[in-house]
Amino acid sequence: MRCLIGLDFGSLSARGVLLDAETGAELAHAFHPYAHGILTSVLPDGTPLPAGFALQVAADYLAAAEDLLARLGRGRDVAGIGLDFTASSPLPARADGTPLSASHPGEPHAYVKLWKHAAAQPWAEEINARGGAFLYGFGGKLSGEWLLPKAAEIAACAPTLWAEADRFIEAGDWLVWQLSGIEARSLDFAAYKAQHLPAGYPDAVPGLAPRLGPPHPPGTPAAPLTDAWRQRTGITGAAVVAVAVIDSHVVLPAVGAIGPGTFVGALGTSAACLVLADGPRPLPPGLEGAAMGAVLPGLWCAEAGQAAFGDMLAWFVHAFPLAPDPAENYARHAAAASAVPPGSGGLLALDWFGGNRVPHGDPGLSGLLAGLTLAATPAAIYRALTESLAYGTRSILDTAVEGGVLVDRVILTSGGASANPFLVQTIADIMDREIEVPRIENATCVGAAIHGAVAAGVVRDFAEGAARFGARESRTFTPGPAAAAYPAFYAEYRRLAADPDLVAALRTLRRLGGRSTGRS
Amino acid sequence: MRCLIGLDFGSLSARGVLLDAETGAELAHAFHPYAHGILTSVLPDGTPLPAGFALQVAADYLAAAEDLLARLGRGRDVAGIGLDFTASSPLPARADGTPLSASHPGEPHAYVKLWKHAAAQPWAEEINARGGAFLYGFGGKLSGEWLLPKAAEIAACAPTLWAEADRFIEAGDWLVWQLSGIEARSLDFAAYKAQHLPAGYPDAVPGLAPRLGPPHPPGTPAAPLTDAWRQRTGITGAAVVAVAVIDSHVVLPAVGAIGPGTFVGALGTSAACLVLADGPRPLPPGLEGAAMGAVLPGLWCAEAGQAAFGDMLAWFVHAFPLAPDPAENYARHAAAASAVPPGSGGLLALDWFGGNRVPHGDPGLSGLLAGLTLAATPAAIYRALTESLAYGTRSILDTAVEGGVLVDRVILTSGGASANPFLVQTIADIMDREIEVPRIENATCVGAAIHGAVAAGVVRDFAEGAARFGARESRTFTPGPAAAAYPAFYAEYRRLAADPDLVAALRTLRRLGGRSTGRS
Repeated sequence: MRCLIGLDFGSLSARGVLLDAETGAELAHAFHPYAHGILTSVLPDGTPLPAGFALQVAADYLAAAEDLLARLGRGRDVAGIGLDFTASSPLPARADGTPLSASHPGEPHAYVKLWKHAAAQPWAEEINARGGAFLYGFGGKLSGEWLLPKAAEIAACAPTLWAEADRFIEAGDWLVWQLSGIEARSLDFAAYKAQHLPAGYPDAVPGLAPRLGPPHPPGTPAAPLTDAWRQRTGITGAAVVAVAVIDSHVVLPAVGAIGPGTFVGALGTSAACLVLADGPRPLPPGLEGAAMGAVLPGLWCAEAGQAAFGDMLAWFVHAFPLAPDPAENYARHAAAASAVPPGSGGLLALDWFGGNRVPHGDPGLSGLLAGLTLAATPAAIYRALTESLAYGTRSILDTAVEGGVLVDRVILTSGGASANPFLVQTIADIMDREIEVPRIENATCVGAAIHGAVAAGVVRDFAEGAARFGARESRTFTPGPAAAAYPAFYAEYRRLAADPDLVAALRTLRRLGGRSTGRS
Repeated sequence: MRCLIGLDFGSLSARGVLLDAETGAELAHAFHPYAHGILTSVLPDGTPLPAGFALQVAADYLAAAEDLLARLGRGRDVAGIGLDFTASSPLPARADGTPLSASHPGEPHAYVKLWKHAAAQPWAEEINARGGAFLYGFGGKLSGEWLLPKAAEIAACAPTLWAEADRFIEAGDWLVWQLSGIEARSLDFAAYKAQHLPAGYPDAVPGLAPRLGPPHPPGTPAAPLTDAWRQRTGITGAAVVAVAVIDSHVVLPAVGAIGPGTFVGALGTSAACLVLADGPRPLPPGLEGAAMGAVLPGLWCAEAGQAAFGDMLAWFVHAFPLAPDPAENYARHAAAASAVPPGSGGLLALDWFGGNRVPHGDPGLSGLLAGLTLAATPAAIYRALTESLAYGTRSILDTAVEGGVLVDRVILTSGGASANPFLVQTIADIMDREIEVPRIENATCVGAAIHGAVAAGVVRDFAEGAARFGARESRTFTPGPAAAAYPAFYAEYRRLAADPDLVAALRTLRRLGGRSTGRS
């Protein structure tokens, strides 16, 4: 039996699935936490880290890959392997792929800078201030989480180390290199995190271009698994390794989102939203970034999201628990909130507890709860928080539509979609659109496996991959009677979100409060 | 031994004290709840009430007065009796003082309309729309809680009853009439609740003027207690009854607030603030009303307040309890909030949970909690609510100062001042001023007794009354190190409170929510 393996490298752990290449059935799945997790205060040797640092150890990825591939694939005929990775999480390496952290264990800049590493933000602002055509697809603004500012940070802060760095590479691309022996970079990372355009990489960071490499579209085979890795893992067969893909993009074929006009929201602790269209087009003002053919061949894809999402509901139920058991605690809050009328008795929240991405793109903003009276109940507050998440998601969709993108299908996925029907029904009511929640386990890993299937030629294209390996059924949520109540409240949400004095105050308060909370 | 009696008629009950007229010592105190409380849904005979009604039964006041006077005064040589009352709480009566409710028990408009009766608001708006010089001392705007709109409401809704009403009189004035046999109206009620000026009552409600009566300044003797009341209560002595005084004003001499430049805040479920100055002056824009010589002889006094105050803290500790016992619940919240740094980690509330009085004068507004992040704790929220109350009180004081009133002394009193030192210290820090909290039991009743003492000639004036019967010592709160942190946060509070888009949204949300909460 031919098989496929899909691996998902997240922020704290990696997981994988083994699929039957012919039937699409899941044969096994596995999980492996990173030995060092995220380094935010000290390096493994005890070296203290400056504020805003969030590093990882590249060797942890190798250990996770070896364990997962061995557990899933030993003795199996594996046709293809796909993997997705957090981004931008780049590392400096030598020409042979050796991470600089191996020879510089006490140098923070030698490690993988995880996506949430915040200390590169000043370099993003410097690049943004200089400007350039490569910024047009990103609303004129790079995030400090992306590759270019992280490269600029090393060049500025650790010039000697930078001189030793022959390569500067996304950890996902680096892992593909390790597995396949070929440095085959992914267009997905290059387009969204390093602003690669058809004309090439931008010339924004002096000396960076020679440390990168030509990118390849999704589903491109890098090379078969090396002999060394076959020995380590016991894998047999063609074992073609696909180029890597960004973790927030990989789910699309697994949930059947392979055509234009589709809006996909992955509702986790944060929300990642993607909008697919059928040709090159300008970025709708307010969205964060877009590229052509980098997520799926032939499709334009715009990105946006909500910095805090499930986090916000977790914050409330943890701060004000109704039951000691977590599941029971959520269930009781949702049951109480269901009994509150739409609009939460006049309570309205701005879902900016982790900063705002759309429309302000400002991680330094904070959230709001308006309309408080002595009649406000905890159940109404929980409902208002749920509604604010839905207003935020709708405002992303509306921003795309107002920017000229047709949207005729809405798919929601991830934990928030499968585990919180009250939330999804609220989104259906507030969007006044039908919503599909595909039924699929381990959707992210399955998406990675579909990339492996395309790279290995097991399927002709992503559409065939989606049909064979993706979700076979969906739960559909249709707008209910509550939908009639929401336009008035949503109008107030948009009004508050656009009020410059209020936005300035929310920024100032976050600064005065001296706290920061990141996506996690 | 000569004695004095002070009676305080509140919204749900009356209470009284007996004082030694020479030493000022309290000899006894007593309490009497009204038999019918507040009528909001049905009359005693079962007649249903329209929305927004809040009525009382005049006979309940007589029963309370008889019980309290007998318990406190039987067999005593009582020199003077003073009383304060809620306002505006007027009733229609016959020429002999008989309330019309006696002959019309099924007619809602025949009853006392308690201050919080909200159904007269449309008539206030009608009067305000017509305008007039009498509105200048009140920012151009009558409240529906005052006497003129309540008169207009009866004239419009119950014209036959209005034709039978020889008198339309504040319940406090009516009670003085019952006790003394003389209809001696109080300038305090007339000036603040019926907009009486030196030139007389305004001509705002046709037919009202003949149903009123000439007002008398504070401390004016009405007449001695009638023989009938002496027989009922066993009181002996001169028993001179003083003209009545508004409950929120009577405390001034009891807490030693008898001179210009004094700011007094009575911190209860709501907050009532008074500012004393030494001559006639225009109303500082944003404050609610002012008059000369009506609260204390020779002093100008401006009124303002916060619609929800202790209510807001009670709302939070009840909604999110830390302990089943109420006192323990408050104590734990305050202890946790004390450990949060000033500025509550960037959380900032608008204290408008019951609407806003200063600067917008709009009971239809709602509250706000801004600066929310995933790092916000319940303790920080409780601190932010406490700080918002302090910002609100400071903004009233600042409004007076910006309007040209010198303030060199701040006195806080009532339950919130004596029972919540964390709140008072926060106000001292946020005002950056020294605050006095006088130590005195039953301050309101003592204030009423001082009015009796002045009327009876036991003391020469209110200053002597304050010295003999008022508080003898204060607890002083001085600004601490936290004061340095607050100007930045207070600036954001003022910015949010003045943001027209935000204010409009808070009004719309309250309306959309369809809830209302009143002062209580």
